[in-house]
Amino acid sequence: MSRDATEPGRGLSRRGFLFGGAAAGAGAAVALGVDRALASEPRATLDATGLNGARTVDFHGAHQAGIATPIASHATYVALDLHGDTDRDALRRMMRVLSDDAARLMAGTGALADTEPELATVPAALTVTFGFGPEAVRRGGGDAAAPAWLGPLPAFDIDALEDRWSGGDVLLLVSADDAVTVAHAVRMLLKDSRSFASVRWRQDGFRRAYGSEVSGTTMRNLFGQVDGTTNPEPGTSAFDDVVWTSDPGWLAGGTSLVLRRIRLDLDVWDEVDPVARSFAVGRRISDGAPLTGTREADEPNFEATTAAGNTVISPVAHIARSRPVDPREVIFRRGYNYDVPPTGDAVSESGLLFASFQADVDAQFTPIQRRLAEGDLLNTWTTPIGSAVFAIPPGCQAGGYVGQTLLD
Amino acid sequence: MSRDATEPGRGLSRRGFLFGGAAAGAGAAVALGVDRALASEPRATLDATGLNGARTVDFHGAHQAGIATPIASHATYVALDLHGDTDRDALRRMMRVLSDDAARLMAGTGALADTEPELATVPAALTVTFGFGPEAVRRGGGDAAAPAWLGPLPAFDIDALEDRWSGGDVLLLVSADDAVTVAHAVRMLLKDSRSFASVRWRQDGFRRAYGSEVSGTTMRNLFGQVDGTTNPEPGTSAFDDVVWTSDPGWLAGGTSLVLRRIRLDLDVWDEVDPVARSFAVGRRISDGAPLTGTREADEPNFEATTAAGNTVISPVAHIARSRPVDPREVIFRRGYNYDVPPTGDAVSESGLLFASFQADVDAQFTPIQRRLAEGDLLNTWTTPIGSAVFAIPPGCQAGGYVGQTLLD
Ligand code: HEM
Ligand code: HEM
Repeated sequence: MSRDATEPGRGLSRRGFLFGGAAAGAGAAVALGVDRALASEPRATLDATGLNGARTVDFHGAHQAGIATPIASHATYVALDLHGDTDRDALRRMMRVLSDDAARLMAGTGALADTEPELATVPAALTVTFGFGPEAVRRGGGDAAAPAWLGPLPAFDIDALEDRWSGGDVLLLVSADDAVTVAHAVRMLLKDSRSFASVRWRQDGFRRAYGSEVSGTTMRNLFGQVDGTTNPEPGTSAFDDVVWTSDPGWLAGGTSLVLRRIRLDLDVWDEVDPVARSFAVGRRISDGAPLTGTREADEPNFEATTAAGNTVISPVAHIARSRPVDPREVIFRRGYNYDVPPTGDAVSESGLLFASFQADVDAQFTPIQRRLAEGDLLNTWTTPIGSAVFAIPPGCQAGGYVGQTLLD
Repeated sequence: MSRDATEPGRGLSRRGFLFGGAAAGAGAAVALGVDRALASEPRATLDATGLNGARTVDFHGAHQAGIATPIASHATYVALDLHGDTDRDALRRMMRVLSDDAARLMAGTGALADTEPELATVPAALTVTFGFGPEAVRRGGGDAAAPAWLGPLPAFDIDALEDRWSGGDVLLLVSADDAVTVAHAVRMLLKDSRSFASVRWRQDGFRRAYGSEVSGTTMRNLFGQVDGTTNPEPGTSAFDDVVWTSDPGWLAGGTSLVLRRIRLDLDVWDEVDPVARSFAVGRRISDGAPLTGTREADEPNFEATTAAGNTVISPVAHIARSRPVDPREVIFRRGYNYDVPPTGDAVSESGLLFASFQADVDAQFTPIQRRLAEGDLLNTWTTPIGSAVFAIPPGCQAGGYVGQTLLD
C-alpha cells in the first residue's frame, strides 16, 4: 500500500469524524467551521474509543510516514553519531530493530520488550521517520552510494552555525499529537540504538495542538507570520515531483531533508510595526494575504507598482526572494516552532525548526537559500544557528525495514 | 463570581460537549467511555467555532485559576528574581500589568499592546497563576506578612538540589492545551515584567494532549505509573479545606505551591520488572489498582497480609509512606512530566515537575515529604534536583489584580 496522505484508511481523522457527528448533534452554528475542514482531510478510520489519541498512521508503505502525512503538533528531531565499530552489518541490525520499534509504536502496541508499555497505548498519529547522514550512507553503501547533495550545505554569510545543532549520521524524526507519546517513542528508539550510536543533538518543536484550530489552517510561526501558504499539497502529482526521488538507486521513493535551526530575534522584531512586518515578507501579517491581494490564497503580483512607481511587493521581501526562479526550485516546507528556556538577560529564546523535503537539495533548496542569504529583509531578525542534511530512504513493506535498499 | 471548577460558565468543556454530541451521532460504542467522563466535567460554554482552541477560563474570581480548574496538557513554570529597586510600589505596578495581561490573554484577546496579537487568538483553556516567594512578600508587606512556611523546605537526605531549579521571588505558572499559546503568553508576561525582574529559571511540563484520552483519566508519569489517583476532587468541600487558606490575612482564599523537580532514573527503572514496580508503589503498574484491590478507585488495605505474614502493601511502598498519618496531612497534587535533551551518554533526561497545593506547607506537605525521605522504595529511582515554595495569593475581581490584598 502506498503512503499517500489522500488515500483512504490512513486512520488520521477519527477526530474529524467525531466532530462531524458532534456537529450534526449540536446544531448548525457548531457545524459550520468544522465541516468545511473535514472535506480536505484523509478519510477516517473508526475505532470504538473515538479519541484523538487512538489515531494511527501506518508505518509501512512506498514512502516513509511523517512527510506527506498530516503534520502533528509535536516533533522531536534526534541526530545520532554512529559508534566507530558500527559497520554495515551493525547498521543493518540497528535499522531492523528501529523499524520494528517504529511500526509497533505507530500501531499503538508498544515496542517489543517495551519497558513502559503503558505509555505506548496512545499513538496520537505518531510517525517515525528515519534519515541517513553522509557517514551512514558511506558505511552502508560506500562513497558511490551518497547523492552529490548529501553533506553540509555551502556556507552562507548569514550563518552562525553551532556544532551542537548541526550534522549527524542518522536522523530520528518522531512526531505525534501528544507530547507524552513523542517522549516515550523517542526514548524507546534511543534505547535500542544505544549499542550502535550515541545522541549528537535533540531538537524539540511544536505547532498548534490537534483540534485547536480548523484543520488545514496554515501555521503561524513565533513571529506571528502565516507560514506555509505556498507549499505543494501532499497527494498531488506536483508534490510527488517535488519531494520523491526518481533516482534509480537505493533512494528511489525517498527524499532529502534540510533542517535549519533559525533563531528569531523577537525582541527586535517586536519593535517593528505591522506595516513593516508585512513589507518584510510581502504578505500581510494579519492574514497572510499577499500585499497585492486580499486573501491568503491569492497569487502575489510581483509586477504591481505603487503610485510612486515602486513594486508593492519589495524585490527583497522574503517571498520575492524565495519564489522559484527556475521551476525546479520548489521545496516542501514542514517547519515547527521552538522555544527553550532563555539564558542571560533574555526573556525568550525561540525560533523555527525550518525543515524542507525535496528530491534534490542542490537543485531545489540551495538556490533559494543562496538568494535569501544574499538579500532578504527577514535576515534582519533571523539567524541560522544549526544546519543538517539527511537522505530519507523510501518506506518499507511489512517484514522489511527502512534502509533496506541501501543495506540489503 | 467564584472560581470553583464545578460552577457553570467556566467554559472548559465545549470539547466535552462536542464529544457528547458525537457520541449520540456515532453510536453507543463511542458513547460509553466518553459520556461517563462528561458527568464530572464543569458545564460547557459554547461558541460558534466548536474548536478546542477557543475554550476560555475566567481570570477573575475568588481563587486564582490554574489550581482547581481542569489541568491542561502543557505548563510552564517561570521564577523571577526581583530587581534590587523593585519596591512595594513597583511590585504593585508589575502585578497590575501582569494581571491585566493574564486576564486578556485568558480571554483570547491578546495583551494590551500585544506584539504578536495573531498568536493570542487561541486561548485553549489558558490559565495564568501568580505566586510570591519570601522576598516578594517581604517587599510587599514586611516580614510579618510572610506565612511561617514560606521559604526553602527543610533539607532532606534524598535531595540533590540545584540552584538553577530552585527558589525565586515571583512565580508565573502558565498552562494551556496548546504549546503555542503557552509560549506566547509566557513571552508577553515576561516582556512586561522585564523592568521589574529577571528570569531565574523556567521549567516546562507536559501531560497527555487534550482529547488524547477519556477526560478524567489519571495521568501516567514517565515511569508509566498511574499518578494522581487519591487526590482531593476540585469542587468538593474536602478540596476546599485542603487547598484554600482560611487565614484572616492577605492570603485568605489563596494557597501555597510546592514545586519539586524530581529526576527519574529511567535507565535503572527499566531493569525492574512489573511485580517489583508495583511493589515499590503499592499499586499495580498496569492499572493503578492497589495491590489489595482490583480497580484504581479501590481503597488500599494496608493491613492485608500474605500467606507468609507480610503486609501485601509493603510499609515502605510509596503509598504506605505518603498516606496521611494525621488527617491534616492531605495535599492536592498537580504534576507534569518533563523531558529535556540528554547530556553525556544518556539517552534521556526526564522526570516529574511534582507540584502540590495546600493551605499550609508545614502542616500538610512537609510531614509527608519527611516520611518519604526517611524511607520510600521509590527513592531508589528518584532524585529531587529542584525545590521552590510560593505563596499563591487569592484571585481578584475585574478591575483588581492578583496580589492586591498584600500590596494595596
Ligand atoms: C528565516 C526564517 C524564516 C521565516 C520566518 C520564514 C517565513 C516565511 C513566510 C511567512 C512565508 C510566506 C508564506 C508562505 O508561503 O509560507 C515564507 C515563504 C517561503 N519561504 Fe520562508 N521563512 C524563513 C526561512 C526560509 C528558508 C531558510 C527558506 C529556504 C531556503 C524559505 C523558503 C520559503 C519559500 C520557498 C517560501 C514560498 C515563497 C513563494 O513561493 O511564495 N524560508 N517564509
Ligand atoms: C519521587 C517521585 C514521585 C513519584 C514517581 C510518585 C508517584 C506516585 C504514585 C504512582 C502514587 C500512587 C497513585 C496516586 O494516588 O497518585 C503516588 C501517591 C502519592 N504520592 Fe507520590 N510520587 C512521587 C513523589 C511524591 C512526593 C515528593 C510527594 C509528597 C511529598 C508525594 C505524595 C504522594 C501522596 C500524598 C500520594 C497519595 C497517597 C495515598 O493517600 O494513597 N509523592 N505517588
